[in-house]
Amino acid sequence: PQSKLPGLGTTIFTRMSELARQHEAINLSQGFPDFDGPAYLKERLAWHVAHGHNQYAPMSGAAPLRQAIGDKTAGLYGYRPDSDTDITVTAGATEALFAAITALVRPGDEVICFDPSYDSYAPAVALAGGVVQRIALKPPAFGFDAAELSARISDRTRLIILNTPHNPTATVWSGDDFAALWQVIRSREIYVLSDEVYEHICFAPGGHCSVLAHPGLRQRSVVVSSFGKTFHMTGWKVGYCIAPAAISAEVRKVHQYLTFAVNTPAQLALADMLDAEPEHYLNLPEFYRAKRDYFSQALAGSRLRLLPCTGTYFLLADYSAISTADDVSFCHWLTTEAGVAAIPLSVFCAGDFPHHLVRLCFAKQNETLAAAASKLCAL
Amino acid sequence: PQSKLPGLGTTIFTRMSELARQHEAINLSQGFPDFDGPAYLKERLAWHVAHGHNQYAPMSGAAPLRQAIGDKTAGLYGYRPDSDTDITVTAGATEALFAAITALVRPGDEVICFDPSYDSYAPAVALAGGVVQRIALKPPAFGFDAAELSARISDRTRLIILNTPHNPTATVWSGDDFAALWQVIRSREIYVLSDEVYEHICFAPGGHCSVLAHPGLRQRSVVVSSFGKTFHMTGWKVGYCIAPAAISAEVRKVHQYLTFAVNTPAQLALADMLDAEPEHYLNLPEFYRAKRDYFSQALAGSRLRLLPCTGTYFLLADYSAISTADDVSFCHWLTTEAGVAAIPLSVFCAGDFPHHLVRLCFAKQNETLAAAASKLCAL
Ligand SMILES: CSCCC(=O)C(=O)O
Ligand SMILES: CSCCC(=O)C(=O)O
Repeated sequence: PQSKLPGLGTTIFTRMSELARQHEAINLSQGFPDFDGPAYLKERLAWHVAHGHNQYAPMSGAAPLRQAIGDKTAGLYGYRPDSDTDITVTAGATEALFAAITALVRPGDEVICFDPSYDSYAPAVALAGGVVQRIALKPPAFGFDAAELSARISDRTRLIILNTPHNPTATVWSGDDFAALWQVIRSREIYVLSDEVYEHICFAPGGHCSVLAHPGLRQRSVVVSSFGKTFHMTGWKVGYCIAPAAISAEVRKVHQYLTFAVNTPAQLALADMLDAEPEHYLNLPEFYRAKRDYFSQALAGSRLRLLPCTGTYFLLADYSAISTADDVSFCHWLTTEAGVAAIPLSVFCAGDFPHHLVRLCFAKQNETLAAAASKLCAL
Repeated sequence: PQSKLPGLGTTIFTRMSELARQHEAINLSQGFPDFDGPAYLKERLAWHVAHGHNQYAPMSGAAPLRQAIGDKTAGLYGYRPDSDTDITVTAGATEALFAAITALVRPGDEVICFDPSYDSYAPAVALAGGVVQRIALKPPAFGFDAAELSARISDRTRLIILNTPHNPTATVWSGDDFAALWQVIRSREIYVLSDEVYEHICFAPGGHCSVLAHPGLRQRSVVVSSFGKTFHMTGWKVGYCIAPAAISAEVRKVHQYLTFAVNTPAQLALADMLDAEPEHYLNLPEFYRAKRDYFSQALAGSRLRLLPCTGTYFLLADYSAISTADDVSFCHWLTTEAGVAAIPLSVFCAGDFPHHLVRLCFAKQNETLAAAASKLCAL
């Protein structure tokens, strides 16, 4: 059949993980930990399965999980979404992003994405019949420029998709950025999709700054998060989104025909975990900061130049002292010849992009990071 | 925001289950068992979780599960799909249906659905910009009429969505139906989406007749199935679809941006289960035939008139000897006053529909069926 997504193939994350496997390379490409989630969470899953909690969850999510998400949100961002109407549990953050885009974007609408961007946004916009407008984030700071945004807004602008902490640049939005964004959009019917899946992996002094903390923006926003990143269980595929009731109602209409509901025992186990051990996510910035610093120090003797990392479990590295190859070729070589898999920055970019940068995932055991660093230091 | 799905609210299944809960009615509405899946399947899930199989599965599905699906398909339908290219694991059958529709239907395309139909097809077609054309299945047989289909085909017809065993009429397609369908579409570029989620709950003499057994049709079809129905675990949300490589490639492009991948430990547990205990699904027709007969006999003294049931775990019942109310009102009354929740047939229909029919789910313990029957016999 004629393709609805011409020019797109299998995602880079799948291809690089597969290449890493074939060549037995250390896999720092696709973002997932090589260690396991908390014992209590696993025990609770087994408990709910054994106790017969195996039938359909409610379409919007299991009530205890929506309640626990509401509590966490209130504690962290000083704003309590209504757990009946504002919180929807989804099959990972990917489904939340797809459902929000499908619910909000009509054929011909313009959607502003930043460049680089996570790879699922643009195909979802295309399938909804929308047109992506990209605004380049410029190195070294990759910062948000409200004046540039303002100049790119048109009568057709419907949605702005942002991501903080940002994959792959490891930068974050500040309260000032959000205030400036709000000034640009407040008088127009423009929505915001804020991808905050790394909310608990933020090393900024005041912690993660969420759209939910902004009283104006949160009335126009769908905020997406993920338990896969937070609890080291990327394979469980439970995420969620938070939006005011009227927006959530539209997102849920799509969600209910897209997946209908999410794995029941996993939802109930996550609810138990959030209630019992909030220190897990409260300590996560420290946990990943230590890994970032460990890996950075291990790479100090290499010819890679690391860019600053304020959030996510990714680091960008400039390899121009090692090779003049383009980043796709370099990553292929790095995986097959040097034994370390990474993601080329260019796959996140549609327009012109900074050259000679690759993304390394440091959500790995220290032994894995040490082994990768020793290979990288030899280059 | 302006709705992309105006006129649609929360699905009837969610609303009736909620109403049943509020009124402590016996819930024969939403289709799910009130008993649990096999012990071995639950043990295997706990095992995979405990052994660290908690990160992203491959986008197309865990390899052992795709292999096991291929084996099951070859054994049942005499056709082995390629487990690398033709089988895709999805977040329940709902995601498979949505991904297939999104991949195949372009704005302006016509999609033929039968009436009554499962409620997720039409919204998915609408979101893809397609136009649904309904062909009424006429009582009492609710049979497929190839001449009527032929008359409704136009230059814009892109996809035909069928469902066998059929929810909610409990009828099935035969090999002759498929042969007639093939004659209608063979010379045109028309695809088939065959929803076969009740493939293992079929009471026809020769067993379930799958599109996959037809050498012509299967080259044009996406066939969808579900482990939720087969293993009594509707809350696990693991389904799959089978299509030739070129069609699967397009379905996967959508799937990878829609959910990316499916719960890893559940996939691995299901693979173990399929390999170890094929008798579970081989015995399922007998298991559900016994429930159907038990419930039918318990209702023999009621004023409900049951329609024939050749597949699915649903029965249609004519209540005209009890009430002249419309089916939505009757179901509301039945739930709140008589203590038994059912689904009105009209919610599956867009056009004119047979009146005074409700759908009862018999995927329940015999005690539940007996208790419901005693309430229904009192009416
Ligand atoms: C859904 S696979 C990609 C995982 C991820 O978030 C990343 O590597 O950026
Ligand atoms: C996805 S909830 C509906 C379950 C079902 O298949 C039905 O009741 O028809």
